[in-house]
Amino acid sequence: MAPIKEELLFPDAEVIKRAHTIIEPFIHRTPVMHCETFDKMLQMQLFFKCENFQKVGAFKYRGATCAVASLPKEISKNGVATHSSGNHAQALALAAAKAGIKAYIVMPDSAPAVKKAAVAGYGAEIIPCAPTLAARESTLEDVVARTGAHVIHPYNDYRVISGQATCALELLEDIQNLDVIIAPVGGGGLISGTALSAHYFSPSTMVYGAEPEGADDAMRSLQAGYIIPSENPQTIADGLLTSLGDKTFPIIQKHVKDIFTASDKEIIKWMQLVWQRMKIIIEPSCAVPLAALALRADQFKNKRIGVIFTGGNVDFGHLPF
Amino acid sequence: MAPIKEELLFPDAEVIKRAHTIIEPFIHRTPVMHCETFDKMLQMQLFFKCENFQKVGAFKYRGATCAVASLPKEISKNGVATHSSGNHAQALALAAAKAGIKAYIVMPDSAPAVKKAAVAGYGAEIIPCAPTLAARESTLEDVVARTGAHVIHPYNDYRVISGQATCALELLEDIQNLDVIIAPVGGGGLISGTALSAHYFSPSTMVYGAEPEGADDAMRSLQAGYIIPSENPQTIADGLLTSLGDKTFPIIQKHVKDIFTASDKEIIKWMQLVWQRMKIIIEPSCAVPLAALALRADQFKNKRIGVIFTGGNVDFGHLPF
Repeated sequence: MAPIKEELLFPDAEVIKRAHTIIEPFIHRTPVMHCETFDKMLQMQLFFKCENFQKVGAFKYRGATCAVASLPKEISKNGVATHSSGNHAQALALAAAKAGIKAYIVMPDSAPAVKKAAVAGYGAEIIPCAPTLAARESTLEDVVARTGAHVIHPYNDYRVISGQATCALELLEDIQNLDVIIAPVGGGGLISGTALSAHYFSPSTMVYGAEPEGADDAMRSLQAGYIIPSENPQTIADGLLTSLGDKTFPIIQKHVKDIFTASDKEIIKWMQLVWQRMKIIIEPSCAVPLAALALRADQFKNKRIGVIFTGGNVDFGHLPF
Repeated sequence: MAPIKEELLFPDAEVIKRAHTIIEPFIHRTPVMHCETFDKMLQMQLFFKCENFQKVGAFKYRGATCAVASLPKEISKNGVATHSSGNHAQALALAAAKAGIKAYIVMPDSAPAVKKAAVAGYGAEIIPCAPTLAARESTLEDVVARTGAHVIHPYNDYRVISGQATCALELLEDIQNLDVIIAPVGGGGLISGTALSAHYFSPSTMVYGAEPEGADDAMRSLQAGYIIPSENPQTIADGLLTSLGDKTFPIIQKHVKDIFTASDKEIIKWMQLVWQRMKIIIEPSCAVPLAALALRADQFKNKRIGVIFTGGNVDFGHLPF
């Protein structure tokens, strides 16, 4: 299987299928779950694609694996690098370990010890830095200068978007005739990949995004027609704080029907309901699409709806409910 | 499909297959999950049959559905009854609702409000009683005298055992060449059904039971050769407190290789690890087989092991970790 060599290669149907073939040996094909109680409560047919069961607990492992697997040897021999305090750090560390290459992860001092331990557990080298974007970026530059490692951005990269697109590809293979797919929006890697997969493989399926009210930059960007950066976001859904990128935003503009928001109160309510009724652990960010749908039950009445669940990292000592 | 009419019909291979065909339209075919981290930690290949995703959160719904579906109309027209404070109450209430018959559930006043609400939510009539076995039994007798309802025991009933056996039947269909299956032991309905399915459908698969140290009556019964009742059990695994029955015990004696125990400390440790690593919600009782296996990692090194996960009812306000 030829790798996806060209960083700028746009994720068309063939590229997404190729990405899936490349990463399939490494990822879990996550299950699609149902919940009769929610179907009844909301008067919809809901199909939950459980990426919270993906390795490292999130879809991020798809994109990281696709990017790492796409590197030619003359580049990968120096390893890969990124700055991240979240799931991308773990995803890239594990993807690099599986590929037998080095990973250098710049992590702010403020990152939770449990996340640092997970990254270190995958064998990555952690480079600590001050918890500011400037410090993260300059530290990453130093790492690259020192090691020659190849930087892999968490979302604004077509190889990463191609990997994230495989999640909806699987969902559309498993569940026929979906009217709608809804996914959370942070930097836009997942939602843009999802929208492209629906566009190519199930054109009648509408794709919606969902984000927290307190970090609604994507909704405002879509309305404005240009990227409005996420500034001082305030929400419990801490996986969805980042701004859109210049590769993800145009795809969203073209292929995402609308972006909805939900309040933290609704997010926590649906997070708790999922724990109680579906017996699966989701973090607040993961509950955002379901919370947003529940607020628009009339609009989606009797529709067949795919919901992408992703992110199961929760501090059990500090539950929000 | 002819129902399983005769209450005393022993669950042979044909009866178990028939039970599966009867209940298949009503139950979830629960997924089998993997966890690379645990495989590495314990040096085993583990296959988790996730009955915690079954309706009402536990395998109990299989047995209750099988028993209800097996009733001839002249009996079912008066409804079904049981006394239970746990998952059997919810399972029988839902099974009866699906069959369109009445359910009378005797519940002790001490049962948690959330469980009473769930039973009532399925449309069952709850008959409260004092929280003693004598009060539960005499109240149930009164209910039967008043209504003519048919009593369905939570485990000491061949129709129920046949239903519980379908869980291992599915696991053995999905995963080939298992060396071992391990399941929790309370009254013995699940473990006896599991042992029978392995005996008929995969004779080379050894079946083990697991129970908490503080409720080790099944282990002691197996060693003694007669049923030692569970008296004053002390464990966090509150789904595994009951004594074996005269229908479950002989099957266990004949077909279960051994019964292991685990301490509450180990049970809580593995419950937390499952939440963290597998992102699924299991109650303490559900963690007992995995905790017991982990204590015997040498004995099961490199084996292919099916683990039945069941029970996901947790009070999130009072986590044990």
